[in-house]
Amino acid sequence: MLPGPTNVPDRIRYAMIKAMVNHRSETFTRTLRSVTEKSRALFQTEGDPLVLTSSGSGGVEAAVWNIVRPGDKVIVLVSGEFGARLAETVELAGGEVTRVSSEPGTVPSIESVEEAVRKAQGVKSVFVVHNETSGGTAVPYIERLASLAADVGAFFVVDAISSLGGYALPVDRWGIDICVTGSQKCLAAPPGLALLSVSRKATDLIRKNPPRVRYFDLGRQMDFLTHGETPFTPAVSLYYALEEALSWLVEEGLENRVQRHALHARQLYSMLDAMDLKPLADPKVRSNTVIAAWYPQGVDDKVFRKKLSDEQDIVVGAGVGSLKGKVFRIGSMGDVSSTHVNRTASAMSLTFQKMGYSVDWNRVAAALAA
Amino acid sequence: MLPGPTNVPDRIRYAMIKAMVNHRSETFTRTLRSVTEKSRALFQTEGDPLVLTSSGSGGVEAAVWNIVRPGDKVIVLVSGEFGARLAETVELAGGEVTRVSSEPGTVPSIESVEEAVRKAQGVKSVFVVHNETSGGTAVPYIERLASLAADVGAFFVVDAISSLGGYALPVDRWGIDICVTGSQKCLAAPPGLALLSVSRKATDLIRKNPPRVRYFDLGRQMDFLTHGETPFTPAVSLYYALEEALSWLVEEGLENRVQRHALHARQLYSMLDAMDLKPLADPKVRSNTVIAAWYPQGVDDKVFRKKLSDEQDIVVGAGVGSLKGKVFRIGSMGDVSSTHVNRTASAMSLTFQKMGYSVDWNRVAAALAA
Repeated sequence: MLPGPTNVPDRIRYAMIKAMVNHRSETFTRTLRSVTEKSRALFQTEGDPLVLTSSGSGGVEAAVWNIVRPGDKVIVLVSGEFGARLAETVELAGGEVTRVSSEPGTVPSIESVEEAVRKAQGVKSVFVVHNETSGGTAVPYIERLASLAADVGAFFVVDAISSLGGYALPVDRWGIDICVTGSQKCLAAPPGLALLSVSRKATDLIRKNPPRVRYFDLGRQMDFLTHGETPFTPAVSLYYALEEALSWLVEEGLENRVQRHALHARQLYSMLDAMDLKPLADPKVRSNTVIAAWYPQGVDDKVFRKKLSDEQDIVVGAGVGSLKGKVFRIGSMGDVSSTHVNRTASAMSLTFQKMGYSVDWNRVAAALAA
Repeated sequence: MLPGPTNVPDRIRYAMIKAMVNHRSETFTRTLRSVTEKSRALFQTEGDPLVLTSSGSGGVEAAVWNIVRPGDKVIVLVSGEFGARLAETVELAGGEVTRVSSEPGTVPSIESVEEAVRKAQGVKSVFVVHNETSGGTAVPYIERLASLAADVGAFFVVDAISSLGGYALPVDRWGIDICVTGSQKCLAAPPGLALLSVSRKATDLIRKNPPRVRYFDLGRQMDFLTHGETPFTPAVSLYYALEEALSWLVEEGLENRVQRHALHARQLYSMLDAMDLKPLADPKVRSNTVIAAWYPQGVDDKVFRKKLSDEQDIVVGAGVGSLKGKVFRIGSMGDVSSTHVNRTASAMSLTFQKMGYSVDWNRVAAALAA
């Protein structure tokens, strides 16, 4: 129950052991074409999403270096660790960043973003982490941010690593120029691949400007994709797994997957409430894929997570940055079901109880049943 | 028989299907420690090699951005496509590149490199592709290049993607500051991981300078490795495979593996000679891992490789860049044995014969037997 890497179902895991092939062959081109085709359903796009051999963060860095030019005014929303990293990456690429920040567990108000865009004048791009994995929050106004960026002629880039698939972000309809996700979150594939949608507008920009980096040059990726290849040797085995993971997504349907994630998130928040535990997130912006909650008084983070793992076989995430030791984070992504949620509830109840924090099991069961 | 990705033996392929784990857990730390430990044998180093989730080219780009500062005078040896790419990558990072070039099939003379270093004055780094996969050549004077760089206080970086393991490059003894290789060549693991050794001198430089990129920031990689982690989510399944591939290397022994590669290369060159085919490489600098040869008059590249693959199940590489259609390239790396070589010889003989280029089988057999 980690906020990534998540469980990889057998059908996806076993896809990796297919024999290695030439990455410049018709055989691999077929895999690549299939991945492109199926990832359109994920991004709800008519474009050709790109797949990079890197973690999701590599994909975000690719977006940054392909969109930001030195001296560009860039707005970055920051409501936690991953937003802070995003802002730093934009600065590395030469962007002049205005951070619109909020406390962990909250997101900045849309008005504060509007004001920052107005004040900065000549904003070239707006970057946001949709789902802040460190604080368990999701920005609820992505579509409005897209319009806001479009209104001032700015590019709009979304880091949706820990949300896409668990949430729907229709990139074409909303006008997201680059949307990035990772293989190991709501897609339930192994880590090592980043997926990016690129709008026509962003494609034009990338075509016009000389590349600033090579491995993460998206223009080169597009050129090679035209003839069914990747510029650099791809992680072939992970593409096999991704193809299978996307097949599962297409079979289930994006809308059903989103509803499944919403259901399990509700169950988990109810469970926490029944345990008298307080989620980190403001209820209005709480995430459906990462559920973060404050530890009860006196429960040690390391001991709790170790006991939960050793004795109950349930792994949850630690707090990140300044929240280390104060919160735990439950990932509810990809291959998650009510069975997983129920197992987590009983395992946590038992472990808390052993550590001296008593839980009313009847309340927990009633919350889950409801 | 591709110059990468190469065959992945079952024991390595099946290692990938182990269950996914938290990449910030003791379990994964054990895998990472084991990979670090075993890769010391590959690089013959007492340092801690780094592993990045990217292709080998990503690893080379990491070396470039961590060593080269804008305005640095950099010498790059170019004897083919991959040398040319390397020079361009150094330029992207702001290096002022002097190319020391040679025709495909040859390598620049050591004297021409010495002269270039002398003339440039104040050279900050020297970059070389050890084994030029496009031309089937290997630079035979890596140790002398290392001394030459050291003499003028320059850093020395080697792209050994298609050679390390098939060749020994003792990085500590020779004084190679960064040596890069990929998982999918002589290690016979699936593609998607780059391995880098970093000298103490290069570590000091990286520590002193602010990072210019994030995903490929080697300083950050080192910091995280200290406590048994990677900064970004690693391709966990590929680490499982790499651990197994390195175990095989340690069992076989680097020296034995190098000798095995030399033997099979000799067999393949003898085979070509018996077929009256001319290798692209000058005999003095021919590679033991990539054997490139000119097509006989009238044999079409695409038809030949397709027939060889469809009818004989042997896949060889095409020519790259300006050599496309003129040469074929046999990879002899990783999981290669005399059986592979013999199968390749008979498959090629048969296919050439069908295409009107007759081969004396007795000569081929005699060459292989010798």
